[in-house]
Amino acid sequence: MRVDINSDTGESFGAYTIGHDAGLFRSITSANVAAGFHAGDPSVLRATIRLANGHGVAVGAHPGFADLVGFGRRELNVTPQEAEDLVLYQIAAVAGVAAAEGVKIQHVKPHGALFNMAVRDAELATAIARAVAAFDRTLILFGLPGSEILNAGRAAGLRVAAEVFADRAYEPDGSLASRRKPGSVIHDPAAVVARAVRMVRERTVVAADGSVVALEADTICVHGDTPGSDDLAAKIRAGLESAGISVKAIGVQ
Amino acid sequence: MRVDINSDTGESFGAYTIGHDAGLFRSITSANVAAGFHAGDPSVLRATIRLANGHGVAVGAHPGFADLVGFGRRELNVTPQEAEDLVLYQIAAVAGVAAAEGVKIQHVKPHGALFNMAVRDAELATAIARAVAAFDRTLILFGLPGSEILNAGRAAGLRVAAEVFADRAYEPDGSLASRRKPGSVIHDPAAVVARAVRMVRERTVVAADGSVVALEADTICVHGDTPGSDDLAAKIRAGLESAGISVKAIGVQ
Amino acid sequence: MRVDINSDTGESFGAYTIGHDAGLFRSITSANVAAGFHAGDPSVLRATIRLANGHGVAVGAHPGFADLVGFGRRELNVTPQEAEDLVLYQIAAVAGVAAAEGVKIQHVKPHGALFNMAVRDAELATAIARAVAAFDRTLILFGLPGSEILNAGRAAGLRVAAEVFADRAYEPDGSLASRRKPGSVIHDPAAVVARAVRMVRERTVVAADGSVVALEADTICVHGDTPGSDDLAAKIRAGLESAGISVKAIGVQ
Amino acid sequence: MRVDINSDTGESFGAYTIGHDAGLFRSITSANVAAGFHAGDPSVLRATIRLANGHGVAVGAHPGFADLVGFGRRELNVTPQEAEDLVLYQIAAVAGVAAAEGVKIQHVKPHGALFNMAVRDAELATAIARAVAAFDRTLILFGLPGSEILNAGRAAGLRVAAEVFADRAYEPDGSLASRRKPGSVIHDPAAVVARAVRMVRERTVVAADGSVVALEADTICVHGDTPGSDDLAAKIRAGLESAGISVKAIGVQ
Repeated sequence: MRVDINSDTGESFGAYTIGHDAGLFRSITSANVAAGFHAGDPSVLRATIRLANGHGVAVGAHPGFADLVGFGRRELNVTPQEAEDLVLYQIAAVAGVAAAEGVKIQHVKPHGALFNMAVRDAELATAIARAVAAFDRTLILFGLPGSEILNAGRAAGLRVAAEVFADRAYEPDGSLASRRKPGSVIHDPAAVVARAVRMVRERTVVAADGSVVALEADTICVHGDTPGSDDLAAKIRAGLESAGISVKAIGVQ
Repeated sequence: MRVDINSDTGESFGAYTIGHDAGLFRSITSANVAAGFHAGDPSVLRATIRLANGHGVAVGAHPGFADLVGFGRRELNVTPQEAEDLVLYQIAAVAGVAAAEGVKIQHVKPHGALFNMAVRDAELATAIARAVAAFDRTLILFGLPGSEILNAGRAAGLRVAAEVFADRAYEPDGSLASRRKPGSVIHDPAAVVARAVRMVRERTVVAADGSVVALEADTICVHGDTPGSDDLAAKIRAGLESAGISVKAIGVQ
Repeated sequence: MRVDINSDTGESFGAYTIGHDAGLFRSITSANVAAGFHAGDPSVLRATIRLANGHGVAVGAHPGFADLVGFGRRELNVTPQEAEDLVLYQIAAVAGVAAAEGVKIQHVKPHGALFNMAVRDAELATAIARAVAAFDRTLILFGLPGSEILNAGRAAGLRVAAEVFADRAYEPDGSLASRRKPGSVIHDPAAVVARAVRMVRERTVVAADGSVVALEADTICVHGDTPGSDDLAAKIRAGLESAGISVKAIGVQ
Repeated sequence: MRVDINSDTGESFGAYTIGHDAGLFRSITSANVAAGFHAGDPSVLRATIRLANGHGVAVGAHPGFADLVGFGRRELNVTPQEAEDLVLYQIAAVAGVAAAEGVKIQHVKPHGALFNMAVRDAELATAIARAVAAFDRTLILFGLPGSEILNAGRAAGLRVAAEVFADRAYEPDGSLASRRKPGSVIHDPAAVVARAVRMVRERTVVAADGSVVALEADTICVHGDTPGSDDLAAKIRAGLESAGISVKAIGVQ
């Protein structure tokens, strides 16, 4: 039994700092590195890749909308072609900077609104998968279990990874509960750890209504921009390992 | 006897159009493609690479300052590290998008103020050369003959190409005459063609004061953002070929 | 009988040029001036206001989304508060630069996707109207007849102006036909002029299915970013005046 | 005896937070509010103005270069016309948003590299003063004592305010010691307070070499983006008041 732990990283921008990358890199196994559109800049990108690599953390591209003020979290009505070109550009930038640091990138995880839109928009999902495949067919595409993006990734011949959120409530249909609902974010670290272990061992989660829902769990997302995220990541990793689960980057054999 | 003809391309941005790329690609042999910082966007970048490749024109990265409103033409007091990261990022983006289109990039030419500052600023020039070498030691670095950027490129083990401007007046010391001086831009196509031929055949140019100046001439720059630039490029190419000079991309054996 | 003619202006950005403002200003009576978010920059804004004022054209603010690469034409899922602050900022910038040029602005017309979203989204429309009213209750708010933005403007105590498009097809319900439909843009100048005259004299338009639809027509929009837009504007104005219609800025007594 | 205390505020941007504005507003009397170019965004701007006003802190515009990733701290080779238009736009935006909140702005303080360049570049300083005067001749222009910007402000008929830095070392000629020199920033709060009191009471400062230098001191700048800046501001204010100095916004009678 094994699982990957991923987190969004490299989100600082110029004089602005977000996240606790150095702390997270002690516990996570895959870093989704911002590419300068919704967050990050060329110097932050390079420093983040060096830091991840120094900690043995696998690097992935984390493309998002060119909406820095909105942190890529606002839906933007792009055409599929725009999405494809946007994603290809950002993968290229991250992969090329990584290559200059001696690192081959492992995966691609769309960010924020782009990630959410690709859950249900098959045309957008196909455009994203096309960009990934055009760049490198060995990259692993991250997305929600059951989402259009994973379907599109498979259809494009890509390896995909189903991502779960141990600190978020789920609906009975396996979708994430909206952040606006009370209780949608789970703050108790012990509960988060227990959910993570269950997700990996049993491939299930207890939904908000108490029902048990099956879900794939290849990689667990830890949010990096909340206070204490590095501690939470450490606890999740320790809890998984105590339960006999091997925590390794998804691309490691 | 041979020479390359290069031009800045891919400078359109969203709804904004600059240049006559399709026309230029009939005559030039190397395209300096903007990377989205001083000009260009992800969709323009990709379309420009496709268009260049379809015309058999070699592709290069054209990194510039992140100053879209100034078109990268205003000097910005970056640190050498910022310059290195900025250039590496932009090379990575262009090279990666090109690779997805089946194209290996040939060269790097800094843009505008970054190009001009690297003529005389050895520290900046070294930072740029370091970025190029970190990405790919087979890339050819373009710069003015006698400039710090060519020195830095050679010191970094890169192949360099000396660039001349057939439509610009030169000072007796071999530097370009300032655009503010009367007569600094030569508008008569026949004169431009004659200068281009002389630069390649004799490795000299007649300076503004009538003196004859020696200069290296591996590649001739044609400005793409002036009306009629595609016609001028065609005339220069025809003039060179009539004079028995082979016009080929710099990287072609 | 009278009518206003408006056009989007000030859309150039740095080295990038869009539109034919100088030509348009000979015929239009109200200029919607971009504020630097979806188009325009501080120097273009100021020059456009001077040019409009020199031609006796009334100035309005034309706020849009901060999406330069998308020219403000892509829907962006902003909160009402973000929309209100975005619109207030842009009105402030245009009005303040205009004041420094001795000009009091007359109106506000949201741009592109923001304009379109405010046709049907009452909450967004209310946020926009709140921004206008917070800045200056004497400003006139432009929008489609029957739209939520005009309702919101009236509810906020603002004077509103119903805007029509003489070169666009209408649906039987009075909405604009989608640009994707064949025939949705009318290219024959004579037909456009005839439609403009009818809209003002009879307050009706012949819809795509031949039915006659009633609509308010306080101001006619002429698109500024299409070739020949200055000629079309001149023809529309001449046609209106030949039909005995007075062409004056909406805010002129 | 009286003095003003000013600080740069409103520097957060979207999801990115910089500064401790709420804490600072308990002690300072004038807020330099970023306008969205080097820092700030439309929502941050408005919220900052509300917060300042709620604390009885006077509001000023803090225009800077359009260089968000460089936080406006990198010299950019703008033309005087570009500088004038850039400053006018940003004053207009801040003043207009403030007006919608019932606040008349009091002053203008250029930011970062623009501020530093205007110390010695008379042409740039004149352009900035022209923008301020074009907008509102009653605005107070902040700058270093002895700088070109204060000369230009006076020449334009503006009231000016000489600004001092209690936590920075001075050279014997009255200029600020470079941040690169050891000891250029004074970290001991008691020393900073003592310097502030001396600057206001005696109009002198002890320079880095021990010599006593005369300088004007209308307003004391407290840096807002350093940890503990709100505490330091409180100590400076308390120290000044204990010394019998009245701490009031510069524009208050």
